[in-house]
Amino acid sequence: MERRSTDPRPDDADTVEGVGELATLARILPRLPRGDDTVLGPGDDAAVVAAPDGRFVVTTDLMVHGPDFRRAWSTSYDLGWKAAASNLSDVAAMGARPTALVVALAVPGDTPVADLEVFADGLRDGCAAMAPGTGVVGGDLSVSPTFTVAVTAFGDLEGRAPVRRDGARPGDVVAVSGALGRSARGLDLLFRLGVDHEGVPDVSAAGALRERDPDVGWHLAPTPPVADGRSAALAGATAMLDLSDGLALDAGRVARASGVVVDLSGAALGDDPRLALSGGEDHSLFATFPPGVTVPAGFRLVGTVRDPAGGAPRVTVDGSDLGEAGGWDPYRLWSGAQG
Amino acid sequence: MERRSTDPRPDDADTVEGVGELATLARILPRLPRGDDTVLGPGDDAAVVAAPDGRFVVTTDLMVHGPDFRRAWSTSYDLGWKAAASNLSDVAAMGARPTALVVALAVPGDTPVADLEVFADGLRDGCAAMAPGTGVVGGDLSVSPTFTVAVTAFGDLEGRAPVRRDGARPGDVVAVSGALGRSARGLDLLFRLGVDHEGVPDVSAAGALRERDPDVGWHLAPTPPVADGRSAALAGATAMLDLSDGLALDAGRVARASGVVVDLSGAALGDDPRLALSGGEDHSLFATFPPGVTVPAGFRLVGTVRDPAGGAPRVTVDGSDLGEAGGWDPYRLWSGAQG
Repeated sequence: MERRSTDPRPDDADTVEGVGELATLARILPRLPRGDDTVLGPGDDAAVVAAPDGRFVVTTDLMVHGPDFRRAWSTSYDLGWKAAASNLSDVAAMGARPTALVVALAVPGDTPVADLEVFADGLRDGCAAMAPGTGVVGGDLSVSPTFTVAVTAFGDLEGRAPVRRDGARPGDVVAVSGALGRSARGLDLLFRLGVDHEGVPDVSAAGALRERDPDVGWHLAPTPPVADGRSAALAGATAMLDLSDGLALDAGRVARASGVVVDLSGAALGDDPRLALSGGEDHSLFATFPPGVTVPAGFRLVGTVRDPAGGAPRVTVDGSDLGEAGGWDPYRLWSGAQG
Repeated sequence: MERRSTDPRPDDADTVEGVGELATLARILPRLPRGDDTVLGPGDDAAVVAAPDGRFVVTTDLMVHGPDFRRAWSTSYDLGWKAAASNLSDVAAMGARPTALVVALAVPGDTPVADLEVFADGLRDGCAAMAPGTGVVGGDLSVSPTFTVAVTAFGDLEGRAPVRRDGARPGDVVAVSGALGRSARGLDLLFRLGVDHEGVPDVSAAGALRERDPDVGWHLAPTPPVADGRSAALAGATAMLDLSDGLALDAGRVARASGVVVDLSGAALGDDPRLALSGGEDHSLFATFPPGVTVPAGFRLVGTVRDPAGGAPRVTVDGSDLGEAGGWDPYRLWSGAQG
């Protein structure tokens, strides 16, 4: 497996089952960030995290080998980084400032401990890049035939109301911060070209592809605009969510929750509107703002909110209804191919 | 799979991959408790939970099919109940009042949705029995060849300092609330008798065994004394932890963290001291209290804390050193047998 971090023991033959849970944790924990809001870090039955305004935001997310990633494509560093990204963006989408994470790993017993050290490095660097000051305050480690990452992330609303999905109002402007369709384009490249001659995910094919096209690395370890969630809340965002399943599907969630039509501008969807509408996993932020508000730095206008005028809440593009829009549902779309 | 809950659709043939993630969640979520501390429940990018004293306690735990449970032995209801028990007890061991859980499930695509409904019922009933008012505020659902449950639990310290492992002082009394070795006895029975003639975990053998011996059901769905954690903190406990890996190993953690000798009374260890010392997964509470304190209801005295007098921090029984004490390390002890 490719390593993009400084691994101090590249020839280290220790495996998780060889050294046991406690010795593995003893090598991982020192690599993790303590965090500015950590009252009590790892090592006891539970950790304690500050919640300055008397509430905390919480989100949890699983990444499972197969449906969510392939070890042949993702480095351990990528997995740590992406685990941070996908959870921090959910905290951001509530308008909160991320404060802490806990991370539970279930891995095959023959997993090198060094791989988990590199995972921890990716997690640490992802937190530092996207939400500096966020700590990893606890975790769990178990054995499983299926490499599984479970992250729970926390945030502080700083006294504000959470920005929900149901607050968009007719007349609001619609804005996005971050990429649209870039992760999906990278994944499509991996499916087509990051495989061997039998179509099985392949380490060296993926590595070469990644060198050629930055969207591949973006898919494997994206950097969503986490800080822009807080900015949007401060600017008065009326609704917000994290674009994890694609713009069409996620904008539809805001439309239904708010009872409105989200009308997107075709011109704002770039060269490949289909990809921008259907591509998931960019973890960009979708937000609505009252008319007249200057949208914060990072956001660009992509549409307006309209009254459904007796029709169904829905997403339109330049006033026209979308057809059946695809979204990422792992139970329906996962082919079962490993790698 | 045996069902112990009222399943409204026993002939329901829906599977998770058949109906998809969203439809599955729509059937699970209404069964989960909202909770007294829930500010914003499931349905948005993240939930919001109250943290009345400006901090929150957090613990996370994985349960993986194989090392942590066998579907042939545990009903879906058991799994939900045990997921609540093992996490609530970690919150209790800090002296906190549990407030909320988030639950992430990764399950094979052919898992009946009805099984997950029953899992939710076990989770709900476990919360109601052990920590009434605790809400399930969020979750995630993914597909995996390996049935995996990831729970993160939260608690409120009500203005108190967390009760850590490092506060035991010479002269303190040592007390336990809850069973010692009962879960391990139940597991031992399952390994010996809950199997078919080839030694593979068997549904009907386990069911019959469970009818005969209540320790089997206790292992599969224990009821640790969660409320006693708060009582211990109010009574001035100097150290506390959840007995998940066995009394000898866990008391050793308090001894090392506190720099003391934990001297247990052989007479307090019951008929099978070996089992009481080594048996894990009871999730009972181990606590130390200052001399002269009346230990709270639920706790019984099992020893005293002594000065190591220049020796190593360690656990003794009636003043004699223990030999090498076994503990539960899934990477070392898991045989790999499925069921």
